[in-house]
Amino acid sequence: MGDDNTVRIGLLGCIRFASKFVRTVTQSSNAVIIAISDPSIETANTFAAANNLSLETVAVYGSYEELLNDPRVDAVYLTMPVTQRAKWAMTAAEKKKHLLVEKPPAQNAAEIDKIVEACESNGVQFMDGAIWLHHKRTVKIREVMFDSGLLGDVRHMYSTMTTPIPEQVLERLTKDAMGLAGAIGELGWYPIGAALWAMSYQMPVSVKALPSSVATNSVGTILSCSASLQFGSTATATAIVHCSFLSQLSTDLAISGSKGSTHMNDYVIPYKEDTAWFEYTSGAKFVDMHTGWNMMPEKVTVDCSGTEESQEATMLREFVRLVQGIKRGGSEGDPRWPEISRKTQLVVDAVKKSVDIGCEVVYL
Amino acid sequence: MGDDNTVRIGLLGCIRFASKFVRTVTQSSNAVIIAISDPSIETANTFAAANNLSLETVAVYGSYEELLNDPRVDAVYLTMPVTQRAKWAMTAAEKKKHLLVEKPPAQNAAEIDKIVEACESNGVQFMDGAIWLHHKRTVKIREVMFDSGLLGDVRHMYSTMTTPIPEQVLERLTKDAMGLAGAIGELGWYPIGAALWAMSYQMPVSVKALPSSVATNSVGTILSCSASLQFGSTATATAIVHCSFLSQLSTDLAISGSKGSTHMNDYVIPYKEDTAWFEYTSGAKFVDMHTGWNMMPEKVTVDCSGTEESQEATMLREFVRLVQGIKRGGSEGDPRWPEISRKTQLVVDAVKKSVDIGCEVVYL
Repeated sequence: MGDDNTVRIGLLGCIRFASKFVRTVTQSSNAVIIAISDPSIETANTFAAANNLSLETVAVYGSYEELLNDPRVDAVYLTMPVTQRAKWAMTAAEKKKHLLVEKPPAQNAAEIDKIVEACESNGVQFMDGAIWLHHKRTVKIREVMFDSGLLGDVRHMYSTMTTPIPEQVLERLTKDAMGLAGAIGELGWYPIGAALWAMSYQMPVSVKALPSSVATNSVGTILSCSASLQFGSTATATAIVHCSFLSQLSTDLAISGSKGSTHMNDYVIPYKEDTAWFEYTSGAKFVDMHTGWNMMPEKVTVDCSGTEESQEATMLREFVRLVQGIKRGGSEGDPRWPEISRKTQLVVDAVKKSVDIGCEVVYL
Repeated sequence: MGDDNTVRIGLLGCIRFASKFVRTVTQSSNAVIIAISDPSIETANTFAAANNLSLETVAVYGSYEELLNDPRVDAVYLTMPVTQRAKWAMTAAEKKKHLLVEKPPAQNAAEIDKIVEACESNGVQFMDGAIWLHHKRTVKIREVMFDSGLLGDVRHMYSTMTTPIPEQVLERLTKDAMGLAGAIGELGWYPIGAALWAMSYQMPVSVKALPSSVATNSVGTILSCSASLQFGSTATATAIVHCSFLSQLSTDLAISGSKGSTHMNDYVIPYKEDTAWFEYTSGAKFVDMHTGWNMMPEKVTVDCSGTEESQEATMLREFVRLVQGIKRGGSEGDPRWPEISRKTQLVVDAVKKSVDIGCEVVYL
């Protein structure tokens, strides 16, 4: 079970996707899965077997309550449907469990505020599951493009998260399963988060859904949406974000600045786990006769081939580091992570509101 | 001077940029520069010297009229400021000169209609200078992504043309020099043209400038603008186009479809003249555990290393082919090229109108 410093984690929800998290914890040196739970005990048992979790070391619970009542559990990973996340996140915080919550962590900013409040008053760390923020590449771009000045001031961003869902399933996407914001919360969390990240978490002054882009299914769940985000009181920077269940997989992030620009087409999940890259130009212009550019795009590759170098591993490492700091005493955790979630959710809410009021501008 | 089949070309305007065209004609086997003209004879003489044009074979005129009155000239290349292009294009057509006109060919669709009408009634070919449409890569993408079905139905497009202008020059960009549409005509011609190209020249049903994106200088010339274009009466396809003099060079074209997506970051002018590529995925999805993609992007490279393989050369070849067809008799030229210009201009006009009416939706 590891030493005293090991962070003991429980799962709230045994969806198939949680296997990746289990793998990451298993490969880590300072965290361990000690319990899993699901409202269906069969689902939990099947998950345990599929993930080679030994029943000798991992407790399998048929309810979230039971897991949260297990005093050995330090931290929980929440993957249940978004409509239930706020309720269980707050309950977990009250039980003094640190929280790693799949994105979107809640249905709106009011819910996130309550979660964060519960975490603060119970002295536990909150973090959402937007893994790409923890990727070594993301850290590298910050350093290479932003800190160095190669990009200059951000002028224009384009970011997408589109992933197809079979037509027969699209109609079954209800607000109960997807939350009120539909694709804006489920997928838009990424491009909206990417725009905020590029702006160093300066909030947009206004947000507007693009009328031509909004598609819903017959029960009104948002399946596709584009929006523009304006940062700064004049046209200092604009982001176009696009999320859709109607297109093939695309995860583009293009940032255009006063001095340079950078591109990734796999910012959410890199093509390959063991390596990732981004391309950039800085000071690019056409050569004299306009027969080409004065430079080729520079490709910066980041090696992630170690088992603890994937973006899941770096996210877990950060989470564990913060939890350990609090457990040891002296640290109150890092308020930056709940703040990032809160700001992302505020913009998700604003885009949703713009859709609701006929794609009018919403000021923040 | 070549044989009878050689197309004899005259320049209307001796801007430095026209050197590229001269080089392309010089390298071609069936066209020749026989005259150049500029309102300033000094500019014309300097241009002749700088481009090694022999005064024995090339007439140098100090006015456009003189060149247009030279009966040996078959075709003209127009590069004077956009505000004068329509006037001289019409005059040239009346003088039975075939027309290759730098983009934007006019200030609005009404002007283009007059030019095209003059070309039709005088039996001469019209083509605008959007070279990238003639690049071998553009032809290849059409074949690989669209004709094959790998892309599926277009859902979302993103296209930019941004190129920086020094701050002190920005203020000097007047409507007299830039035309009424400013950056939308001068730069937006490319991303708008790219969206139309991707939609096989289906026209958008509506267009809307994004309020957050519009920047003007103190005399009201548009310096920066983004717009969304809606194709199809429901949300079938959306394009985001972005043009700006305030960002570093960026020329992105991303097309996301129901089955695949494709990317180029140098669609206007490739990084290198002798080679160009695009990347695509089709049927992409995350692998089971979301640790990566089920494929890497495919890179398709097009070799353009021959002197007649640059995009200028392929544009010239197409233009010359059409002019030769008409000269030989039996052909009326290709109405597709004026139609492409006209449609592009209609959308430029609609974006400009949207800016003028406070970024409201403009229906086409």
